[in-house]
Amino acid sequence: MTQQDREEAVTDEVVASFAGTKDERLREIVQSLTRHLHAFARDVRLTQEEWEAGIGFLTRVGHMTDDKRQEFILLSDVLGLSMLTVGINAPAEPGVTESTVFGPFFVEGAPEVALGGDIARGAKGTPFHVTGSVRSTDGSPLAGARIEVWEADEDGFYDVQYDSDRSAGRGWLRSGADGEYAFWSVRPAPYPIPTDGPVGDLLAATGRSPMRPAHLHFKVDAPGHRTLITHVFAAGDPYLDSDAVFGVKESLVVEFTEHPAGAAPDGRVLDTAWAGLNFDIVLEARP
Amino acid sequence: MTQQDREEAVTDEVVASFAGTKDERLREIVQSLTRHLHAFARDVRLTQEEWEAGIGFLTRVGHMTDDKRQEFILLSDVLGLSMLTVGINAPAEPGVTESTVFGPFFVEGAPEVALGGDIARGAKGTPFHVTGSVRSTDGSPLAGARIEVWEADEDGFYDVQYDSDRSAGRGWLRSGADGEYAFWSVRPAPYPIPTDGPVGDLLAATGRSPMRPAHLHFKVDAPGHRTLITHVFAAGDPYLDSDAVFGVKESLVVEFTEHPAGAAPDGRVLDTAWAGLNFDIVLEARP
Repeated sequence: MTQQDREEAVTDEVVASFAGTKDERLREIVQSLTRHLHAFARDVRLTQEEWEAGIGFLTRVGHMTDDKRQEFILLSDVLGLSMLTVGINAPAEPGVTESTVFGPFFVEGAPEVALGGDIARGAKGTPFHVTGSVRSTDGSPLAGARIEVWEADEDGFYDVQYDSDRSAGRGWLRSGADGEYAFWSVRPAPYPIPTDGPVGDLLAATGRSPMRPAHLHFKVDAPGHRTLITHVFAAGDPYLDSDAVFGVKESLVVEFTEHPAGAAPDGRVLDTAWAGLNFDIVLEARP
Repeated sequence: MTQQDREEAVTDEVVASFAGTKDERLREIVQSLTRHLHAFARDVRLTQEEWEAGIGFLTRVGHMTDDKRQEFILLSDVLGLSMLTVGINAPAEPGVTESTVFGPFFVEGAPEVALGGDIARGAKGTPFHVTGSVRSTDGSPLAGARIEVWEADEDGFYDVQYDSDRSAGRGWLRSGADGEYAFWSVRPAPYPIPTDGPVGDLLAATGRSPMRPAHLHFKVDAPGHRTLITHVFAAGDPYLDSDAVFGVKESLVVEFTEHPAGAAPDGRVLDTAWAGLNFDIVLEARP
């Protein structure tokens, strides 16, 4: 028996141990995971010390994760697994708004705001007026779609990254009768993903930048349609080509407009310059 | 661009992002990990819900892990990654004692016992006399080798699985002038790996047994020799062919002898039946 045969026998034994899995899909997943995980270890000739380092790394990722910090999602993001999963599940239909990564900063229970309301609630930054519409693939407007948004402030931090329970720069609203929506927030800024944990150590050790281009997260649900999870990115952002989590898609890069102090189209009067964004959303109808 | 091209482009982008890693070995590992992890997701057509379930699973593994419970090692063990890593790093030289998995129950700082002493320290079970020798590949005895052993008691539990800080069924000693060693403990029993965590849930969902055949763990160090991490298994154990962590190797299966109450060869007089084991160890000399 050659060394290669002996190693493959271990893999075969483990794959066979899963043969009795009743759920066919689970069986497919664990058997494939076993084969690919083992192929990785064999290909790199993983040493005992490297295996220990891997266990230690995952342990640190687990201990960094709590209800406000999801280091496993961050790890999946920087390894491109999140974006690949988005791509695998991409809508087949052209014209549908593209998805991107969910990210680790979504929080359940964000406050509802009225159509046209302000989700900033104390988040620092340039006032930012976001407008658009939600439509179905056939062009029909989707009234009452649930639009949830979350974003970093001008310093690049989400509310949950501050030492307070404040909810700021996040909220949800419903689209109006013609599918239209509008809200105020603050203009998001580029920011580094959190680097004080093991994922930050991985980026440092591999010489990678932790920066993400400025973006606003959207999660949009409407009855009879596929949930959309995406971002809008600012055109011209210096980090569009080097997003730490590989989330940028061309169709999601939109011009942020600049406006002097004064009255905005919705009647709000601003004493500072403000920014604007129009983002029309098309959801895929479920078959 | 086909769907397949789009997916492979994500993988290529992530692999390229690691190109600047200064440490060549780290670069090799993270790039290979990326390719294999992505191939897994593509092969099974991983859904967003399955990705979320995976993140949730790893989060639970992380939260189950503390200084006495290593659920990541347990996960690596039941996926056969631990045993494959042992196999990849197996000594090339014939005659050297084979390795097996380290397992999650090693604890730093176990007590030292004298040659011939008792490591049971309150662990329940049939008295068990373990003897043997430590030699180098050329047959020369290794005096002063550090032999650390740990094991489950007759109920199948390690000391750290009890609600106490008691150290029992573990310890270390040094081999004597002729490489010989001897100690008393209790006869180990087959046991289920801990099933109260996510790894137990995985075994249940995949219809796998959590049982391990009875065994005694060894970690043996001697200057100028490669550290040996292994087990001794009891011949005739009913779980030798279905070890939950794939750790059994034929050369590590040894007959446990049975003895009536009375005097043992080392002069100890026992008022109950006792068991014995002889296990001669050969360490690989480092080049």
